[in-house]
Amino acid sequence: MAHPERTEGPTGTRRVGIVGAGQLARMLCEAASELGIETIVLAEREDDAATGVGSEIRIGSPRDPDALLGLARSCDVVTFDHELVDLHAIGFLEAQGLVVRPGAAALEVAVDKSIQRRRFAGWGLPVPAFCVLDGTVVDDLAALRSFADRIGAVPVVKAARGGYDGRGVVVASSIDDATAAVSAWRADGVHVVAEEPVAFRRELAALVARRPGGETAAWRTVETAQVGGVCREVRVPGVVDDVTASVAADLAGRVAEVTGVVGVLAVELFDTDEGLIVNEVAMRPHNSGHWTIEGATTSQFENHIRAVFDLPLGATDLVAAAIATVNVFGADHGGCADPLAAALAEPTAKVHLYGKASRPGRKLGHVTVIGDDPAGVAARAWHAAGALGTPGSDRAEVAT
Amino acid sequence: MAHPERTEGPTGTRRVGIVGAGQLARMLCEAASELGIETIVLAEREDDAATGVGSEIRIGSPRDPDALLGLARSCDVVTFDHELVDLHAIGFLEAQGLVVRPGAAALEVAVDKSIQRRRFAGWGLPVPAFCVLDGTVVDDLAALRSFADRIGAVPVVKAARGGYDGRGVVVASSIDDATAAVSAWRADGVHVVAEEPVAFRRELAALVARRPGGETAAWRTVETAQVGGVCREVRVPGVVDDVTASVAADLAGRVAEVTGVVGVLAVELFDTDEGLIVNEVAMRPHNSGHWTIEGATTSQFENHIRAVFDLPLGATDLVAAAIATVNVFGADHGGCADPLAAALAEPTAKVHLYGKASRPGRKLGHVTVIGDDPAGVAARAWHAAGALGTPGSDRAEVAT
Repeated sequence: MAHPERTEGPTGTRRVGIVGAGQLARMLCEAASELGIETIVLAEREDDAATGVGSEIRIGSPRDPDALLGLARSCDVVTFDHELVDLHAIGFLEAQGLVVRPGAAALEVAVDKSIQRRRFAGWGLPVPAFCVLDGTVVDDLAALRSFADRIGAVPVVKAARGGYDGRGVVVASSIDDATAAVSAWRADGVHVVAEEPVAFRRELAALVARRPGGETAAWRTVETAQVGGVCREVRVPGVVDDVTASVAADLAGRVAEVTGVVGVLAVELFDTDEGLIVNEVAMRPHNSGHWTIEGATTSQFENHIRAVFDLPLGATDLVAAAIATVNVFGADHGGCADPLAAALAEPTAKVHLYGKASRPGRKLGHVTVIGDDPAGVAARAWHAAGALGTPGSDRAEVAT
Repeated sequence: MAHPERTEGPTGTRRVGIVGAGQLARMLCEAASELGIETIVLAEREDDAATGVGSEIRIGSPRDPDALLGLARSCDVVTFDHELVDLHAIGFLEAQGLVVRPGAAALEVAVDKSIQRRRFAGWGLPVPAFCVLDGTVVDDLAALRSFADRIGAVPVVKAARGGYDGRGVVVASSIDDATAAVSAWRADGVHVVAEEPVAFRRELAALVARRPGGETAAWRTVETAQVGGVCREVRVPGVVDDVTASVAADLAGRVAEVTGVVGVLAVELFDTDEGLIVNEVAMRPHNSGHWTIEGATTSQFENHIRAVFDLPLGATDLVAAAIATVNVFGADHGGCADPLAAALAEPTAKVHLYGKASRPGRKLGHVTVIGDDPAGVAARAWHAAGALGTPGSDRAEVAT
């Protein structure tokens, strides 16, 4: 509902527009509400996760310039739930003097993997060996085979845009399968990045918030456990030693600086024998940072809101020695009569549900437990997540 | 906005109706959102604190039976932001089989101080010496003077209903002033409670949540610092020793049991040379419990939501050794250009603003700081609250 009559608080009313209404928008709204900041959410569907939480909901496409313009004109600043946006439309808003954070220039590297890999390589950031297949060479498929020969392996192939949670990525076992995937994408005009498969010990995620003037605040680097490209568990600090954690945080800080991002930046990293390598980058709150809601003095959602309003960033210290966050996925089994009651029977579990309809495999929420003992907090978080639907087999798959 | 199309989450959609749309409703909505629970808020005004946060907002009076009936029929359970309700209307809903928690039978003692004092005295709970002036004796004013003679002091006089934050209470310096206040109330048909003034060392608050079946969870008893009957600072644990804390928590547990309250119960207590004495009772989340948002594993708002849905209660342990919460009041001075920025410059301050328009003396929010050092967390919380408007003189007044 609109609030034309709302009067000013002690600091004047601040309004943030959020493009997209998924769980990240929902948790941004929760954080904004605590600070007394109003939210206007641009949702694609009436039943998107954030529609029950924002101060005002508008239905529209994140790629509709008119919807974006209307949103930006109603708010002090526009920010994002996801990267499935039209950079030209964002640039158009900025050209009119409207405030969009992060801006189009920064967002490019999060929206387009081919741009990201080229830029990062140019900036000296550690990325896998890669090859962009976008029609600028005469024969993309010949270039793919040539790249495969050079690295001596079947490349991982990725659509440059639109992928998330393992979608848009093909890890083929043969060059023929990789070629088929690239061929299909190229026939649709999709740009492709082919990459050397990286042998890693584990996956890490570094998280940093940056204000427009360059002030940053980094959280503790964490270990993430994935199945099929989808994050299942986040361990804080996990097995990440302090030196590696610090190197990862510095790397995220460099990405933040060179891209000029404003807001939260998440960098997913491979921890390899040769050091850290950048896997993915997101310019928004990220699944690997949900633990910060209970586990840090200031959450990624609150610091994202602070950053986009150019307000001082909050402290990012851990508030406990061990933190585990486990994602909740829709069950493909019947489950118990009252899953929420079963989950809350674990009294230390902090259950977050996103208000999404359950479908097998759909990410519906997450559970965080904080405490002193890494094994204990993980066991309790998995137990509560399991009650809500997450298959126990997930845990077996991510066990280390 | 309404969400007729919303589909069921992993646990089916739960909906709570909240009567009243102040800051308590706002923070209930924030807690419900985290659990994926929808909120329908019955607000008196479009600009009430919770109107920017609830899943659905309805405008109506908390004393309008039709508005209450419509709310109860749209929800699984109805609960409250305040006690300014019509008990008959609540009882009417219950008689129809609609779920209201706490129910009318429990709410009576929170709504009406004369009923509370009589009941509590009958149950053997420690209350000040008191005398009810409600027209059941021939001459209320003669009864007042007789009571004053008996206690050998000028009684504190209180309107039985409708008071909060010091309103509806007169601490007169002469029997004539007390008589004048009672006389005015009685002429309006208002029931009055006259009480012995209590000499106390300090004020404490005990907080407990209770499920319908009787399961309870108590938080650590805290010290509250008041000026003019209005809470300014909450210190956890403050100077409350463990024995006193435990006695206070037991007392709150007894009140919860004998009243059959469902949800959060706050008991404000005087700590005297003769032991603890009940001052006030609230059957809802309470200002003395805002520290639980960051300072306890489970907040009072989350456990209130859990309790009214008869879900398992969350752990109430402290997550830090020292916690301070300072209320934010509207300034009667100009203040700085951007009070929110100034407050957030204290990186550990957890700022909560309620989205209310600023007026001198109006409660606009609160600030919590957690840490190891009682003096340090208090100083930081006062500093941030001061930036937002709270006069520094408040701190001098509550200094011990």
